[in-house]
Amino acid sequence: MKYYIGIDIGGTTIKAGIVDENGNILVKDAVKTDARQERLAPDAAALAEQLLIQAGLEKENITGVGMGIPGTVDAKNGIVRYSNNIAISDLPIAAQFRALFDRPIEIGNDADAAALGELYFGSARGMQNVVFVTLGTGVGTGIIINGKLLTGSEGGHLCIRTDGVQCTCGRHGCWEAYASVTALKRQTHAAFIRRQSPMTAAVSRKDITGRTAFDCARAGDEIAAAVVERYLGYVAEGIADLVNVFHPECVLIGGGLSNEEPKYFERIAALANAEVFGHERLTPTPIRAAALKNDAGLLGAAGLAIAAE
Amino acid sequence: MKYYIGIDIGGTTIKAGIVDENGNILVKDAVKTDARQERLAPDAAALAEQLLIQAGLEKENITGVGMGIPGTVDAKNGIVRYSNNIAISDLPIAAQFRALFDRPIEIGNDADAAALGELYFGSARGMQNVVFVTLGTGVGTGIIINGKLLTGSEGGHLCIRTDGVQCTCGRHGCWEAYASVTALKRQTHAAFIRRQSPMTAAVSRKDITGRTAFDCARAGDEIAAAVVERYLGYVAEGIADLVNVFHPECVLIGGGLSNEEPKYFERIAALANAEVFGHERLTPTPIRAAALKNDAGLLGAAGLAIAAE
Repeated sequence: MKYYIGIDIGGTTIKAGIVDENGNILVKDAVKTDARQERLAPDAAALAEQLLIQAGLEKENITGVGMGIPGTVDAKNGIVRYSNNIAISDLPIAAQFRALFDRPIEIGNDADAAALGELYFGSARGMQNVVFVTLGTGVGTGIIINGKLLTGSEGGHLCIRTDGVQCTCGRHGCWEAYASVTALKRQTHAAFIRRQSPMTAAVSRKDITGRTAFDCARAGDEIAAAVVERYLGYVAEGIADLVNVFHPECVLIGGGLSNEEPKYFERIAALANAEVFGHERLTPTPIRAAALKNDAGLLGAAGLAIAAE
Repeated sequence: MKYYIGIDIGGTTIKAGIVDENGNILVKDAVKTDARQERLAPDAAALAEQLLIQAGLEKENITGVGMGIPGTVDAKNGIVRYSNNIAISDLPIAAQFRALFDRPIEIGNDADAAALGELYFGSARGMQNVVFVTLGTGVGTGIIINGKLLTGSEGGHLCIRTDGVQCTCGRHGCWEAYASVTALKRQTHAAFIRRQSPMTAAVSRKDITGRTAFDCARAGDEIAAAVVERYLGYVAEGIADLVNVFHPECVLIGGGLSNEEPKYFERIAALANAEVFGHERLTPTPIRAAALKNDAGLLGAAGLAIAAE
């Protein structure tokens, strides 16, 4: 049996685990993320050492280490170029980590990692062409073509509306500016101010989350239902783009929305497939929630190590 | 020396040539396209036979045949699913051709073929990751990843404006509906009607081509210059999308615009690169005219045969 260490670097927590080749997590643990970028590699290496003790394994039992990071990653050179969530700039984290924990290490963007997690251990097992989309603070994409990762694809920054809402990247009208959870919160707030029902009036701005519109819609509020329907349309718009470009075997959606009811994914699939080029002559592309939930980041990171073998 | 036959099926003409492995065209010829789809394979096979005689070669000297077709192609099964330009529906053209001209045959979409032409014989020689865009009646894209064609990518149907102009594919706001030559003609006409200068007033609707706005702008007309600038912006919008998703080594633009002056490509490159995610930290992606001009279709078709080896 082969073992990998997956390390998921997040804005608030570093999560790590030892994963076997079948995707079973032997042990896992976490530490708080230190805001200083030079602390990331030492803290991750200490966590890896600790996992070995917990699992009763030696360093030599570990085939490779994978590290998923939210940001722009130069995977080939092991350098994190930039991250929005953590203050990182041109950090040679792979070399720093390997100096402390001498096993092969592969780093990658977190959405890329999550796509590999689904490919090896999730909904995309056995597939060759997969589009993974994660809807969170931003919109991340991970693309698998012919069984291989297309590194660093920034599908969240497809422009769906020329001269539209300004995105954090500077461009106007990015998909992310309409389909992220951040955008959904903004849309929810705007709609709840514009039109008030007893239910929407009871929600204060600071309580609005990515679930608010879904929860109120479920409880029968029509204003909230309209917000949800429009949001699903935005999600579908970008997915149709990705299907047009990649023709994947399936599209998997991770992030906050992946915990919502199947009917929402059915709606996204219906809206997106109706927009796909030549859809009258094509089998609709399956569009569904990603399979891996809480441990997606960790399993995805392990996937980076597997992909590098 | 290896020899290939490239066959470029167009709406009005079938062009074909014998191409050596270095991209030299030994002989070439053409016949009018018959509107009946069952005539395509026999006419192409007759043309291929004729080329052999002209070149003094035997069928056995031909390593393979490539056929580029404007439409949706099931390359694996050798079937043209659909074409807008020619009335084709589920035509098993590869098998039909091979029954008449017994050499390995590979079929593909014409934009895919053109991308391979640039890869083997044009501006993209030695590259691994290339985006090719052709601006014509529609907008076609051909994508090379890790030296291999991503078959059937429909980048022209990326949505750049939710609820925008309706595209021939049924969707609203497709890039093609803004950046094709057809769209440029529509934009030119609309602008020339809305605001009249002595120069624009002299142009009648039926005389408007994809060159009109460029020609009038060159002659100093400001209305035309504004049309050109806006059009270049639309072209850049979709290119920025493709760069965000694929991070290619270069973007090559074929079709009508590829005969315009270099300054227009510099403008597209400046506009597109300013929209790319993380552009402040990235080297700008080279964006330029495709190298292959008149024989692009024929060389691209030969490229399909080379890629299949």
